[in-house]
Amino acid sequence: MAILSYLTTTHFDFGAVRLLPKELEKLGVRRPLLATDKGVRAAGLLDVVLGTLNQGGALPVFDDTPPNPTEAATLSAFELYRSAGCDGVIGLGGGSAMDLGKAVALLAGSGGPLDRYDPLTGGARHIAMVAPIVAIPTTSGTGSEVSVGFVIVMNDGRKLTFASPKMIPRVAICDPELTLGLPPALTAATGMDAVTHCIEAILSPVVNPPAEGIGYDGLRRAWRHIEAAVRDGADRDARWHMMMASTEGAMAFVKGLGAVHSMSHAAGRLPKLKLHHGTLNAVILPTILRFNEGVSPEKYERLAEAMGLPKRTDLAEAVTIRNRELGLPSGLAAMGVTDSMVADLVPHAVADLSTRTNPRPADAAAYTDLFTAAL
Amino acid sequence: MAILSYLTTTHFDFGAVRLLPKELEKLGVRRPLLATDKGVRAAGLLDVVLGTLNQGGALPVFDDTPPNPTEAATLSAFELYRSAGCDGVIGLGGGSAMDLGKAVALLAGSGGPLDRYDPLTGGARHIAMVAPIVAIPTTSGTGSEVSVGFVIVMNDGRKLTFASPKMIPRVAICDPELTLGLPPALTAATGMDAVTHCIEAILSPVVNPPAEGIGYDGLRRAWRHIEAAVRDGADRDARWHMMMASTEGAMAFVKGLGAVHSMSHAAGRLPKLKLHHGTLNAVILPTILRFNEGVSPEKYERLAEAMGLPKRTDLAEAVTIRNRELGLPSGLAAMGVTDSMVADLVPHAVADLSTRTNPRPADAAAYTDLFTAAL
Repeated sequence: MAILSYLTTTHFDFGAVRLLPKELEKLGVRRPLLATDKGVRAAGLLDVVLGTLNQGGALPVFDDTPPNPTEAATLSAFELYRSAGCDGVIGLGGGSAMDLGKAVALLAGSGGPLDRYDPLTGGARHIAMVAPIVAIPTTSGTGSEVSVGFVIVMNDGRKLTFASPKMIPRVAICDPELTLGLPPALTAATGMDAVTHCIEAILSPVVNPPAEGIGYDGLRRAWRHIEAAVRDGADRDARWHMMMASTEGAMAFVKGLGAVHSMSHAAGRLPKLKLHHGTLNAVILPTILRFNEGVSPEKYERLAEAMGLPKRTDLAEAVTIRNRELGLPSGLAAMGVTDSMVADLVPHAVADLSTRTNPRPADAAAYTDLFTAAL
Repeated sequence: MAILSYLTTTHFDFGAVRLLPKELEKLGVRRPLLATDKGVRAAGLLDVVLGTLNQGGALPVFDDTPPNPTEAATLSAFELYRSAGCDGVIGLGGGSAMDLGKAVALLAGSGGPLDRYDPLTGGARHIAMVAPIVAIPTTSGTGSEVSVGFVIVMNDGRKLTFASPKMIPRVAICDPELTLGLPPALTAATGMDAVTHCIEAILSPVVNPPAEGIGYDGLRRAWRHIEAAVRDGADRDARWHMMMASTEGAMAFVKGLGAVHSMSHAAGRLPKLKLHHGTLNAVILPTILRFNEGVSPEKYERLAEAMGLPKRTDLAEAVTIRNRELGLPSGLAAMGVTDSMVADLVPHAVADLSTRTNPRPADAAAYTDLFTAAL
């Protein structure tokens, strides 16, 4: 069992899920709310986790997390938390379930409305306490189990990325066993999410060499093992590495992210399309690797090195080829995004926190071109 | 100003020392003991630090830290801490001063004797509280400002490495300005200490990919900038990178260290020779790189890559050459260690905690050969 002791204590290995009761006890949590979604339940993973707990009566479970967690769903989950007298949260699932769990833990510890904590208006300073969170990822992944942030679509339609060191889960249980059944398409999409996290974190101009070092290791791991994980979901070694890469990606992105995420967050808002965050990242990444070229040649060389490619490799091209090999969409148009939608997406991308840490500045004109190029 | 938020909050940049009063205030420390040594005082660095504090009266300063901190010196410092009514420790200096400061903070928080906390008998579990520590390195270095451990020569002669996550300083102020005057010989020795930390941490079989990622980044940085820092102490860029590499080395060695450190700790005990820890590490490193060859070829390739060398480079040879270029001794014999001393050193190396995480097992017979080879 690897124990990674950083701001989150991460228990990492096959079988780690068995540690859940002990970790809850150490945190002093007697009555956790389990926040998850129907996909996790259908995959049998909820039963696996419940099976580790001898709760006597039933554990309160909220499994209605939508693919992109909403303020409404958060408030429903919080209502269950309160009425069941909960004192902590288990977030079990992909980024959505873990993010919703974080939002509930914030409301539990600091009160509502969520709006108070809007990072774009410095709201993070209002965060006082956060109820204890144990995060258990079932994809590889968003890395939300160790990250400072969570994304919620507010009742008024705005998609906000909340972020604060106080939101970092105290405990993460990273058990690659839980991902063995993740289908190829999701393995590819969430795996490229991890790749994007590592790359964008590295390219961020924020100075944090340890975070960068973690990012390069995560990128190396993800780039090397993603095909095997997609080809054969039962490949335990590949699954282990992909989950580690995912956790490392989030540890790296304390440096901030970049234009890929600004654009993904924007496109993720389109209500009818319900586009997947990881798939969007994968599809947009080549365009931004092209856009950022030349700003930091040394980092590009190190990225290539980490990816096992010759120093002067065209990284945008390498990612495009890899996306194709993994069966990911060829562009945003293939995902249903049309030219006419672009104008509405642009202001959201400009305003996104991640734009501030893109190595090259991007304004409305730039994003218009970038969305168009990514179609 | 780079802020690295891990278990230590590290403020890293030229001028960071100005943050000291604010950081003490945030920690709630009103009356710190300043633990340092006469070398730091002579270099004018004590005055620089005192100059940032408006203490009204005099700050209690203990500047009698010996080159290898002793239990006796620790107890003297602790006596000053108590009589002055201190509530925290500033450790200012190289590893010795910072380690002594850590020992005082431990006594202050959990009581004596130091012996209770002997890691070789599981004593770390007796550590309850530790008084707040702000660590300010003046060499690059041991990385003690962010590390779990400290080394004390006990009254009975044993050299013990105490280690616990609770010993990690809460705050580190890494100001490369404080190292501009570090003489070439010390720059080389402490720089190779950082290199050794990174390498041994990476080679440790303990599973912690983020720590490894940090280690590879530190190694890359140190290997690239050490010559410039030795050649021209006023090279600010080189000093920045060497200090970062030093901090990263200690962040990496949460994975544990290896046979180089076991041997250095042993040789460091020789009372008449008073051998410098960093110099010992540099001199012994080639022998252990040779000893560990073949156990982990993939890691050796990655080490070479990080050092900017071709994949199949003979690393032991590369370090030998680098040591020579930096003016470091050619072997332990050149430092005054004789054949007849080896037998006494061997049992200490065998018993050292670091031996447990060397990638290749080393017993008394092995260490006898290794010490002989390193002469």
